[in-house]
Amino acid sequence: MERIVYMDHASATSLSPEVKEAMMPYLDEVFWNPSVVYDLGSRVKDAIEDAREKVADLINAEPDEIVFTSSGAEANNLAIKGIAFANPKKGKRIIVSAIEHHSVLNSARFFERLGYEVTFLPVDRYGLVDPERLKKAISPDTVLVSIMHANNEIGTIEPIKELCEIAHENGSFFHTDAVATVGNIPVDVKELGIDLLSLSGISLGAPKGTGALYFKKNTRLMPLIHGGIQERGRRAGTENVPGIIGLGKAAELRVKNLEERAKKLTSLRDRLIQGVTSSIPKVHFTGHPEKRLPNHASFCIEGIEGEALIFMLSANNVYANTGSACASKALKTSPVLVAIGLSDVVAQGSVVFTLDESNSPEDVDHVLNVLPQVARRLREMSPVWKEAA
Amino acid sequence: MERIVYMDHASATSLSPEVKEAMMPYLDEVFWNPSVVYDLGSRVKDAIEDAREKVADLINAEPDEIVFTSSGAEANNLAIKGIAFANPKKGKRIIVSAIEHHSVLNSARFFERLGYEVTFLPVDRYGLVDPERLKKAISPDTVLVSIMHANNEIGTIEPIKELCEIAHENGSFFHTDAVATVGNIPVDVKELGIDLLSLSGISLGAPKGTGALYFKKNTRLMPLIHGGIQERGRRAGTENVPGIIGLGKAAELRVKNLEERAKKLTSLRDRLIQGVTSSIPKVHFTGHPEKRLPNHASFCIEGIEGEALIFMLSANNVYANTGSACASKALKTSPVLVAIGLSDVVAQGSVVFTLDESNSPEDVDHVLNVLPQVARRLREMSPVWKEAA
Repeated sequence: MERIVYMDHASATSLSPEVKEAMMPYLDEVFWNPSVVYDLGSRVKDAIEDAREKVADLINAEPDEIVFTSSGAEANNLAIKGIAFANPKKGKRIIVSAIEHHSVLNSARFFERLGYEVTFLPVDRYGLVDPERLKKAISPDTVLVSIMHANNEIGTIEPIKELCEIAHENGSFFHTDAVATVGNIPVDVKELGIDLLSLSGISLGAPKGTGALYFKKNTRLMPLIHGGIQERGRRAGTENVPGIIGLGKAAELRVKNLEERAKKLTSLRDRLIQGVTSSIPKVHFTGHPEKRLPNHASFCIEGIEGEALIFMLSANNVYANTGSACASKALKTSPVLVAIGLSDVVAQGSVVFTLDESNSPEDVDHVLNVLPQVARRLREMSPVWKEAA
Repeated sequence: MERIVYMDHASATSLSPEVKEAMMPYLDEVFWNPSVVYDLGSRVKDAIEDAREKVADLINAEPDEIVFTSSGAEANNLAIKGIAFANPKKGKRIIVSAIEHHSVLNSARFFERLGYEVTFLPVDRYGLVDPERLKKAISPDTVLVSIMHANNEIGTIEPIKELCEIAHENGSFFHTDAVATVGNIPVDVKELGIDLLSLSGISLGAPKGTGALYFKKNTRLMPLIHGGIQERGRRAGTENVPGIIGLGKAAELRVKNLEERAKKLTSLRDRLIQGVTSSIPKVHFTGHPEKRLPNHASFCIEGIEGEALIFMLSANNVYANTGSACASKALKTSPVLVAIGLSDVVAQGSVVFTLDESNSPEDVDHVLNVLPQVARRLREMSPVWKEAA
């Protein structure tokens, strides 16, 4: 059988049999609404609370500091809108980094329409936010600072603890979008000191349609979805019970093998980075070489158009991503790659590999065999490359 | 085996084997992200669009007028916040009925904090909104009127077409929360003439964590969840693919047997209403006798506390609800029952039965055997009842 190499795990992952099995009873046998008065509801309620504990364990939070959401994007929206709407007296200023996920950027922009001032902090060529820049930008009326834990497009891990301290010295709330880190590296909300953290089920091997927001106890938060008393009044609507159970199971499994998994993926990642940068001329490795997600390798290949590259790779049974998954069809040039100083022409050739335990050294070698050939063929067809050559 | 009678289908329903089977491949085999560039993503995207067509079919909408959400509550939030935030020039006034679901009431109240005026229209003793009252209440600065299609607690169906015409004469948007009707009675958005309609998966036999908002083409709508380009920019976050597929399948099945199902349930419902009102003294049938959901029978039993009644019924293998499922633990007296003019003492004895095709005439007879006995026993223990007797 021909080798199929899927290295786009940040976009979607197949459920493990354990996660799937955990969810199954909640589709039919144990179907009751967790909010009902009769005791059958408590069975479902208890299962939800068990899942909440497991998710809390993964990030060293308390269970009642976890709100389940339908995605990482919803968690980001809840964090930003929840804080800004609930704390109007602190002020009408929000600071985010220039390389945040669209769910953070566009939530912040929404407040511009409501008269808020939004500052987009620039990053260096590795995608790092400089704490000194935050110090200069922050003001007494800054209600919220939101800076992602790691960037999904270039893999760089930000100095969250330091950034958070600056926000707190100023009396501002600090949120981090940890969709790319939770489940891939150890994340400890107490050590980071943050007030809010978003995570996504997809990054943990949990089903699509799941996510969660951590919010530190006693943080005033306006619900994004108003209504009944589910999630202690923080998020209305009947719970996605099978999804939540799957998220809990996935979190439990990830807690157990987080270190070992990261070690394995780091080795695969480095083999991939080393191979790509040494075998393709004019390739730009993007993001930070050390402060980096263990499962993440990203490049820009000059003279190539990312979408064409992904197509051609997939024709050779290699599945990778370009730019941000959510925005891939909306924008030609990634704002993240522009923010780290790459030219449009270079940024267009973006390719992102996100690994999982299912990947092997042989998978990496297959990519290292296919990618240079595909790059060469595409460059032969590219008018831009001919000019440059 | 002892008979177990579940008559709380508005709170939750077990998935049918067909719906469950339709979802299964999308948990593992067909797991790709629908937004990715490579062709495996298109397989998932196509399945989502197929589900969208099926949901659109159920309410006579066009597929591109459907946004998938994570619940009926989210759809209600998206409708109200989406319209108010996107159309600030029309004005800062919102009209809802006094008996809306908490997700509508609390979304409207959220705008009070932002300087909007919210009018809560009263209802008559059947729970009907009088169109003349809307005519008097509406003003040029009314941006949105939101009145539910049918009430989940008393089963009354509102004169939506007439109410919508009044809103449109005034240039206001009209939204209806149709969570209780879609899947239970024929709903035709074109015939109703409305701009927005919320539906919930649970009412269709679809999995928890699913819902949808219909919005008429060219309606300006601010996203509730900002971010990427999913759902054509109306709702960000990676799609809950298995849930959406389940919702589509459930809608397809419901389209096929809507009339037959309603006929069967109406007959069961009437048998239940007739039996309860004739066998229990001082029982109040709530809601409208004819303008009523086919699957819905609701009562208030004087001198009894609803929660105790539900417990005692469940001890006799009869599962029913009291008040609104979402708020059942938050409030002792239902605002809906107060709005139709019942005293606190009467309103406390609320019991709601919602039927499904799985219910039989024998189920109804079992309830008619159990309920009067339970009512008698509870009354014997009640100090309130002794005083009244």
